[in-house]
Amino acid sequence: MILRYDRLGVEIPSGDPDPAGAAAVQELMGGRFGEMSTLMNYTMQSFSFRGRKELRPFYDLIANIAAEEYGHIEAVGATITTMLTGASARDVVAQGSPAHALKAGKGVLPVDSGGTPWTGDYVFSSGDLVENLTHNYFLETGARNGKLKVYETVDHPAARALTGYLIVRGGVHQVAYARALELLTGANLTKAFPMPRIPTRKIPECRPHLERGSHFTLYRFTPEDYKEVVAVFKGEHPETGEELRVAHPAPEGFAWPEAPSEEDVFAPDYAPDEIAEIAQRLRCEAGFDDLTVRRAA
Amino acid sequence: MILRYDRLGVEIPSGDPDPAGAAAVQELMGGRFGEMSTLMNYTMQSFSFRGRKELRPFYDLIANIAAEEYGHIEAVGATITTMLTGASARDVVAQGSPAHALKAGKGVLPVDSGGTPWTGDYVFSSGDLVENLTHNYFLETGARNGKLKVYETVDHPAARALTGYLIVRGGVHQVAYARALELLTGANLTKAFPMPRIPTRKIPECRPHLERGSHFTLYRFTPEDYKEVVAVFKGEHPETGEELRVAHPAPEGFAWPEAPSEEDVFAPDYAPDEIAEIAQRLRCEAGFDDLTVRRAA
Amino acid sequence: MILRYDRLGVEIPSGDPDPAGAAAVQELMGGRFGEMSTLMNYTMQSFSFRGRKELRPFYDLIANIAAEEYGHIEAVGATITTMLTGASARDVVAQGSPAHALKAGKGVLPVDSGGTPWTGDYVFSSGDLVENLTHNYFLETGARNGKLKVYETVDHPAARALTGYLIVRGGVHQVAYARALELLTGANLTKAFPMPRIPTRKIPECRPHLERGSHFTLYRFTPEDYKEVVAVFKGEHPETGEELRVAHPAPEGFAWPEAPSEEDVFAPDYAPDEIAEIAQRLRCEAGFDDLTVRRAA
Amino acid sequence: MILRYDRLGVEIPSGDPDPAGAAAVQELMGGRFGEMSTLMNYTMQSFSFRGRKELRPFYDLIANIAAEEYGHIEAVGATITTMLTGASARDVVAQGSPAHALKAGKGVLPVDSGGTPWTGDYVFSSGDLVENLTHNYFLETGARNGKLKVYETVDHPAARALTGYLIVRGGVHQVAYARALELLTGANLTKAFPMPRIPTRKIPECRPHLERGSHFTLYRFTPEDYKEVVAVFKGEHPETGEELRVAHPAPEGFAWPEAPSEEDVFAPDYAPDEIAEIAQRLRCEAGFDDLTVRRAA
Amino acid sequence: MILRYDRLGVEIPSGDPDPAGAAAVQELMGGRFGEMSTLMNYTMQSFSFRGRKELRPFYDLIANIAAEEYGHIEAVGATITTMLTGASARDVVAQGSPAHALKAGKGVLPVDSGGTPWTGDYVFSSGDLVENLTHNYFLETGARNGKLKVYETVDHPAARALTGYLIVRGGVHQVAYARALELLTGANLTKAFPMPRIPTRKIPECRPHLERGSHFTLYRFTPEDYKEVVAVFKGEHPETGEELRVAHPAPEGFAWPEAPSEEDVFAPDYAPDEIAEIAQRLRCEAGFDDLTVRRAA
Amino acid sequence: MILRYDRLGVEIPSGDPDPAGAAAVQELMGGRFGEMSTLMNYTMQSFSFRGRKELRPFYDLIANIAAEEYGHIEAVGATITTMLTGASARDVVAQGSPAHALKAGKGVLPVDSGGTPWTGDYVFSSGDLVENLTHNYFLETGARNGKLKVYETVDHPAARALTGYLIVRGGVHQVAYARALELLTGANLTKAFPMPRIPTRKIPECRPHLERGSHFTLYRFTPEDYKEVVAVFKGEHPETGEELRVAHPAPEGFAWPEAPSEEDVFAPDYAPDEIAEIAQRLRCEAGFDDLTVRRAA
Repeated sequence: MILRYDRLGVEIPSGDPDPAGAAAVQELMGGRFGEMSTLMNYTMQSFSFRGRKELRPFYDLIANIAAEEYGHIEAVGATITTMLTGASARDVVAQGSPAHALKAGKGVLPVDSGGTPWTGDYVFSSGDLVENLTHNYFLETGARNGKLKVYETVDHPAARALTGYLIVRGGVHQVAYARALELLTGANLTKAFPMPRIPTRKIPECRPHLERGSHFTLYRFTPEDYKEVVAVFKGEHPETGEELRVAHPAPEGFAWPEAPSEEDVFAPDYAPDEIAEIAQRLRCEAGFDDLTVRRAA
Repeated sequence: MILRYDRLGVEIPSGDPDPAGAAAVQELMGGRFGEMSTLMNYTMQSFSFRGRKELRPFYDLIANIAAEEYGHIEAVGATITTMLTGASARDVVAQGSPAHALKAGKGVLPVDSGGTPWTGDYVFSSGDLVENLTHNYFLETGARNGKLKVYETVDHPAARALTGYLIVRGGVHQVAYARALELLTGANLTKAFPMPRIPTRKIPECRPHLERGSHFTLYRFTPEDYKEVVAVFKGEHPETGEELRVAHPAPEGFAWPEAPSEEDVFAPDYAPDEIAEIAQRLRCEAGFDDLTVRRAA
Repeated sequence: MILRYDRLGVEIPSGDPDPAGAAAVQELMGGRFGEMSTLMNYTMQSFSFRGRKELRPFYDLIANIAAEEYGHIEAVGATITTMLTGASARDVVAQGSPAHALKAGKGVLPVDSGGTPWTGDYVFSSGDLVENLTHNYFLETGARNGKLKVYETVDHPAARALTGYLIVRGGVHQVAYARALELLTGANLTKAFPMPRIPTRKIPECRPHLERGSHFTLYRFTPEDYKEVVAVFKGEHPETGEELRVAHPAPEGFAWPEAPSEEDVFAPDYAPDEIAEIAQRLRCEAGFDDLTVRRAA
Repeated sequence: MILRYDRLGVEIPSGDPDPAGAAAVQELMGGRFGEMSTLMNYTMQSFSFRGRKELRPFYDLIANIAAEEYGHIEAVGATITTMLTGASARDVVAQGSPAHALKAGKGVLPVDSGGTPWTGDYVFSSGDLVENLTHNYFLETGARNGKLKVYETVDHPAARALTGYLIVRGGVHQVAYARALELLTGANLTKAFPMPRIPTRKIPECRPHLERGSHFTLYRFTPEDYKEVVAVFKGEHPETGEELRVAHPAPEGFAWPEAPSEEDVFAPDYAPDEIAEIAQRLRCEAGFDDLTVRRAA
Repeated sequence: MILRYDRLGVEIPSGDPDPAGAAAVQELMGGRFGEMSTLMNYTMQSFSFRGRKELRPFYDLIANIAAEEYGHIEAVGATITTMLTGASARDVVAQGSPAHALKAGKGVLPVDSGGTPWTGDYVFSSGDLVENLTHNYFLETGARNGKLKVYETVDHPAARALTGYLIVRGGVHQVAYARALELLTGANLTKAFPMPRIPTRKIPECRPHLERGSHFTLYRFTPEDYKEVVAVFKGEHPETGEELRVAHPAPEGFAWPEAPSEEDVFAPDYAPDEIAEIAQRLRCEAGFDDLTVRRAA
Repeated sequence: MILRYDRLGVEIPSGDPDPAGAAAVQELMGGRFGEMSTLMNYTMQSFSFRGRKELRPFYDLIANIAAEEYGHIEAVGATITTMLTGASARDVVAQGSPAHALKAGKGVLPVDSGGTPWTGDYVFSSGDLVENLTHNYFLETGARNGKLKVYETVDHPAARALTGYLIVRGGVHQVAYARALELLTGANLTKAFPMPRIPTRKIPECRPHLERGSHFTLYRFTPEDYKEVVAVFKGEHPETGEELRVAHPAPEGFAWPEAPSEEDVFAPDYAPDEIAEIAQRLRCEAGFDDLTVRRAA
């Protein structure tokens, strides 16, 4: 089970509407190597894990990384919604992805950059632990490639902030799976880092995360479980030589960006003030303060 | 972001291997009305929610129910893995779903009862709040239908325990969306309850949950957010007349069932003792106690 | 069985070629909420209807609306073909949907606005009448949303005439399913009308249809069956308070728009005059008048 | 537009429940060469037809055959629903197609024999008339193959009656497209008949249709359009040498088979008598006779 | 089994980058009528061929044409890679197909012009020889249509050279299947040639191939098998009256075009010189000459 | 381009009909890790290879392994066709895969064990050489898993012979990609061999291939190209320590198994003798000997 909290792992800045960019960022949501894939691969592998007791450190690793990935689909979702704010529905249809207007009301969808839906066929979960870890390493590698390419082809500050964050955090997972594999088999995949071969520190939007040590830190996204990850996530970081560490609790995070109403797609309504008024009444009845008053003040 | 904890919402009993039943239960994971769909619909709607500030109670409702749904895919996953434990790979291929052996190592996959993968196309998120709520009500209705049919066609005690639990919890979400819609528009969809028209109390595996009031309780699956759900989830339960309530924290839950190794599908390995030994060594190095010793004692 | 006649439910005006607009209108053909979906949902539900004798009014309603939907896919088809007339194949490939030139010869395809084919997975037919009606209501709601968005994002007069017509007619079906549900369960979904919340009368292309009462009229598209729809389609229209009525026969309709040859996509041929000549000869042999002569006269 | 009437082209006999057979018959509904494909190919080709005026006989042929195909999906639908009547939901899941119970309430779905949904990708409509006719000939050939194989592998009398009928009627369409092609190009595809090479008269369930001349008759399924088909559908039948003919109106048809309620899949309801009672009341209110009384008498 | 050699069937000229054109050419790779389809249809039919001994000439025909088709997917692949050389990744995302940058590193993918992947569902292989040949004839007809349309809508010299070549070679296969069908059944499909009805000689890029007689020559792509094709591929060419001939060995072919590194998509690497250096060292160790030296000289 | 020759890489023995086993073997054809995937991944990567000149040894490796994979799809195809020989169509539909009778005429299809078609989405080709090699290593690992599982779950001697062969040959490719990666990056993936961890020598059907050294030999499937593979495929075999070697030409291979006619699926015809007679006449006309005479003698 999970506890969800209303924060994002990265601050998403606003910018000019960018429907074409938003379509490209969809690759990071619903592409074969997008965050839906990392989330669902690790999630399903944790459901099918056999020998949980005997192999606890590896179970904890996979289950805990799954938890962080949920935060990543949130960050991608917030980015796309932000990039579509203020675009005209007409422009979205004409030059971006028609589904963003016709289906999604200027929000995110679980599809890739070509509009193809994410599919459960992207999940690999063979039950063989060494093979699953090999897969996960490869998946993170493809994911890094995708993030780097979106970084290079989309200018919007939200997309840049997002990819800077995801490159660093995905890098941690790439290290984690390579290290797990090394501990089980002796294969030193970390020799191949970085893969793709671009040094992370060259990317300006990655630097703030590097500076606070995010790249060598695995956060435990849990009230108090998954403690045995420390048995696997250890040793030197393959690029920097710094000692890997496990931290708990995870950083506090950032508020979700505002997503104002977009009436030409009826989001949240053709006449949003009417339902906002109902909502205010309900809030007051339930003892919450009246936003209308507060704003008027 | 989420915090994941290593517990299940329902206790999953063991039983005889049942590959054919496991294939049917997949409908509740990856079918159009399965738990992947409820999870991802509410999740994506929360990412694309416009007017979050003005419409907070409705945002909180959708975001919080999304959180519970993650626990539901866990419960379905644990059930399927349990039902496959002890089956011969040969039997799985011959009479059940070949993918459960050839692809999943006797674990769950994000596919439906016919083996078709779940797809992002199952997500509806138009941005129009009233329409999204209408969809969500309908989705829960289809989900209830699916759970009832799996209940009627599969005998395995894990499947029965699972569906008993999901029918009750899904019923809460069905009520929640109907009530939200009623508060916004006046449409009294609860008049149509139960839908399908089978009284929940007739189902033996539902009764323990009814007895503890689970059917009129919305749990807040969060450290401390989503407080404004109380502004919507209120009034009488449409079937029983009991007062709806919001509870926090959610119940503690149950341990995951054991999932022993299945060597004929190499899960977690063709020779699982070898990697278990490595894992023990790593655990000891990290300061955890030695399971081998404990068991020997 | 059906009798097809060579007329359209709405007059489709010509205009400048608009490949990008034609791609958007495809959403109304092959999208999840397009006319293929309404047609095939009601059609399949009528094939699987159990208790036809006892529940005749509801069977008649679904079977008869299915019949009207066939006319709707015709109208969408004629619109798209019209919007592509005169476009250069090169432009269609470059800025519109390549399939419209490479596959469809400047005609319609059963795909959505992103080029994804319509799929039978869009059909819901659970056998449970109340649930099917709930689904159908929701389907019409999603369809109304799609039509409104295409209306807002495409300027071509054919697209505007089409959506004006479909919004009104789909509205009738939305009312019909809501009323059926109300009669069976007491749930007053019509309280939520219009959904989306835009008053139909605000849309200029809807007004001619409103003026002739099309919005409160269910036509029986049948030689003489489906008479019992009157037992369900009755009472007040939820937006206007006018009395709902059932009419027979349906209006006569309009001629299909001309669709001249487009030689750069070999439609109907690279050298259309040659096959037209053969066709004329065959017509004369069969005793029909000679169009060549008539035109020369 | 169409007028639908509540009759079937063939009488569908009842028999023992046969879930496995029903799954096989689905190939004739949703397979690449099933009746959804013939219906939708000719339907879409009629929407995109360019040069309708000059090439009227060919347009009329395609548009009119499309109309008959709607009757064919009805016949397949009625057959599958009939074959599932009386089966236990448990058996449907265990040995037939789980979707028939879990999704379809013992009714038909637009999927093939493996449960894969029909897709709009099966529609070919290039705009080139000669090519479309070539395609249609090939499609009918594949369809004949499929019908013959279902005939050989399924024993249920409904499946046999259905395939006997479809083989004869599909044969007419195969002849029609071959003849159209011959008239336009001189290519004598009819030389290859029958294709597959099984003489139709060898199939007992085809014989009643042959005896009434159905195999050389094209019915005009229209109130009064598509008259110019006679300019194409003429000459000798390739197998029998009989003169081809066009008939109007089409035969009257048969009543749909009874489809009684199946409560274990909630079709039409978990407690069907309750909604039947409501329906009776509505019927009486609308001036129809009371079935309950009639039956009691 | 096959022997592959490092040559192309046609010379692919370079030109300006053309991402939009490259997207259109994908139709010839992964579309329903693309070269993946011709390759895989004939390949699979050869695997499932029954009565190979008795029907050897027809087996040889299908198996041998399959071999040529592998060369066709190569030619399409080389064309698309060439057309993407030098394009900025940003432009590829913005106006072409995002997958060409985000997924394929400016290379080809097995998808169609809309980005939809080729699927095994495009393979028809019923086992019935006459029917398979009918299908193959129709497939080549659809393929010719597609090539002609790409020719008309894309200007890049590589696309023109490719389509000129494929139109001629596909025409040979169209003739081959029509003739095979004629010999087995007497049906003279060649009467309908050319289909589509554009004379091949009107296309400038086809003429060099016509001049060397490529249009009436079936090459045996084999060391020494498939000799019995001569029993089928014979008689007059339907358009020109020239005698069909079988030739062996096939023409020598052309070198693959250069495909220089594209660093903004990390192909073959973000810093390609580093891995080129390793490759040179490995080459020298294995006794091959040092390209660096040679180039310096 | 390729030269195809009419031999198989492994001898396929006959056995009793086994439709259920044939369905499982389809996983090795059309599954995500089947031979279609290995063939098409390496094939497409060779088309998109950038820096072919500088990185020749790696290009040669990928292009040459692609060539061998074509032989693997042949072997899988021959196996499935053999396993279906003699089965009744009725049995194929009832207990195996309906498509094998209804679509494939007791032959192979490009689908997986659940009947889902292979898709181009299974191709990974990012352009980044190190990443492609990582993918290919992982792909061969998944493929080995699949082969081992089919070996364990299917008894038919053809399936056993096939998997014995493919496990050994796939193992060579797994080594090749691991070695290539090691030479470029230093990562010693071979430490993790075998993966899955079952020693190949334990499998009886692998032993004949091990005895002739097939497991440490890369064959050049080419008339005379791809010579530079020796620069990469070298060093010790990770499991046995034997020296890797490159051999040319590849072994001669084996005749395809007989595939007699199956009249209940019309393969090659409902009355195969009739077309066999035509074929004989054509053979004689072309100067080949008369099989009928030979057999009579």
